[in-house]
Amino acid sequence: MKKNIVIVGATGAVGREMVHCLHELKFPVDRLRLVASERSVGGRIETPFGSITIEPISENVFKESDIALFSVGSELSLEWRERVVQNNCLMIDNSSAFRYENETPLVIPEINPETAKTHHGVISNPNCTTAIAAVALYPLHREFGLKKVIVSTYQATSGAGAKGMQELLNQTQDYMNEAPMASHVFAHQIAFNLIPHIDAFQENGYTKEEMKVVWETQKIFGDDTIQISCTSVRIPTLRAHSESIVIETKNPITPEAARSVLRKSPGVKVVDDPSNNRYPMPINATQKFEVEVGRIRQNLVFGDHGLEFFVSGDQLLKGAALNAVQIAELFIN
Amino acid sequence: MKKNIVIVGATGAVGREMVHCLHELKFPVDRLRLVASERSVGGRIETPFGSITIEPISENVFKESDIALFSVGSELSLEWRERVVQNNCLMIDNSSAFRYENETPLVIPEINPETAKTHHGVISNPNCTTAIAAVALYPLHREFGLKKVIVSTYQATSGAGAKGMQELLNQTQDYMNEAPMASHVFAHQIAFNLIPHIDAFQENGYTKEEMKVVWETQKIFGDDTIQISCTSVRIPTLRAHSESIVIETKNPITPEAARSVLRKSPGVKVVDDPSNNRYPMPINATQKFEVEVGRIRQNLVFGDHGLEFFVSGDQLLKGAALNAVQIAELFIN
Repeated sequence: MKKNIVIVGATGAVGREMVHCLHELKFPVDRLRLVASERSVGGRIETPFGSITIEPISENVFKESDIALFSVGSELSLEWRERVVQNNCLMIDNSSAFRYENETPLVIPEINPETAKTHHGVISNPNCTTAIAAVALYPLHREFGLKKVIVSTYQATSGAGAKGMQELLNQTQDYMNEAPMASHVFAHQIAFNLIPHIDAFQENGYTKEEMKVVWETQKIFGDDTIQISCTSVRIPTLRAHSESIVIETKNPITPEAARSVLRKSPGVKVVDDPSNNRYPMPINATQKFEVEVGRIRQNLVFGDHGLEFFVSGDQLLKGAALNAVQIAELFIN
Repeated sequence: MKKNIVIVGATGAVGREMVHCLHELKFPVDRLRLVASERSVGGRIETPFGSITIEPISENVFKESDIALFSVGSELSLEWRERVVQNNCLMIDNSSAFRYENETPLVIPEINPETAKTHHGVISNPNCTTAIAAVALYPLHREFGLKKVIVSTYQATSGAGAKGMQELLNQTQDYMNEAPMASHVFAHQIAFNLIPHIDAFQENGYTKEEMKVVWETQKIFGDDTIQISCTSVRIPTLRAHSESIVIETKNPITPEAARSVLRKSPGVKVVDDPSNNRYPMPINATQKFEVEVGRIRQNLVFGDHGLEFFVSGDQLLKGAALNAVQIAELFIN
């Protein structure tokens, strides 16, 4: 059955990818509507679904839509939730506003599609870093049982939206011209630098971005006994996040067994041929639906119960827009 | 007593820093000689020790020197070792050629200065990534006892010498001009990308760069029971390596106790004030003698026996030139 879809935040980096994903996945769109902030209203966007005029947000839009894909800040999601749900429009929300509510499912369709059906009007889309790690971690969890997960990230500037990417490019240009650099989006210079700080610091010394990986992975896997820690670092790349991951498993694990499991896993592409210099990299993962997994090897600390690997995934796609559209797909029929 | 010093590889990125470090540390230099490859011979370099003409390598140079600081490839170090040692010139070598020999001390002066005296003519300088991590890890090891160390690195292009840095700048300029990029130094594009591959792959799936961190840390700490693993990643920065480090300790550890130990440790600067956005970053660690340590927090996986932190250090200084000159300082008297 065709669906009326509305994208809220349609002009942002993720919103634009949502249009692209609806088309690429051949989503049965009846009517697509695009909502954005005041300054964009009235503009037209050319899409595979025709030329669409940007509308302001209104209750009426939700009344006339089956599914709303929200990609705006938490405040706006919180503000509009009631009016979306009351109008029988399913809200798939990319913000962190509802992710930790017990009654709101947090869904990665390759992992926990069944929980989507338990929604009370809202389904949350996970944090990008979590989603990228989770598609590789879950098949290993099912087969070998995860005990410990230690993550260090290499996150692209577009994780902070199109303006983050632009700041990197501006600073790079300034650096090359020996001009002074200005930082508006990031706390410090990001060109030719890194910043081990994404989102707000929490009382335990971790950032919220780092804790999202812990909380969300446990919730999506339905197992809060898995011990997880994360260090999140912004690096001067444009798009696609990478993560260095060490795991300890309950059952013995080998790189060969892990590769064999991952090769059969949806959403994952094993790129692991070191002798030919093939391993996950942001430039190759960019604009791809699958998360690249490679550098798979027996971890030296946890021995035959340990594995170490590296992933790169497009955080605007599997980390955001693609996953949201895949959640919507669970409601076609 | 003043010493006659010769720097072999004087025109390289590390060699140039060696001159700078000798001056900054007020090393009692009697005569400084600079040796480089044929194409540089005859050129003059202005130094704080006067204007010095670059010489070709020769046995005579070593006959007339007390200490030779080698910063060239392993092959040249291997080729000249005998002739340096036989002429009673102490060889302090920055290559990996002799690091794993039982009879050759591998020295970080803050950690194992006593082993330097056991040399048989050669002392090895550790790998840059190892040295930067080790100055922070060793005080924690002494106080709390290291059981497990899990490292992910963020390494600058100058780790591959001045030509690595130049390749990043060239590719960046080409990218900004929408011109095609060429890769000569690195296996892939490094501008706006990362490469999880430094040095040659070993049979166990780790690179040699990653295994150096394991082998060298165990040797320098004199404890091969510490379990260590590493993922080494090249990122598009110019100078100073960073590392995300998780440790499990034998004794309970807290962030406050760790900070207190690190604040008293030579070679370390605690930069750990998240509420004011202060943490280690390459742009701040560049051209500094001390390794910055911050983001210190209780690790969520190892609990009260676990710590997680982030370091940035100038790999041309503590990771190479500075450490070599500090080794030489052990022989002033």
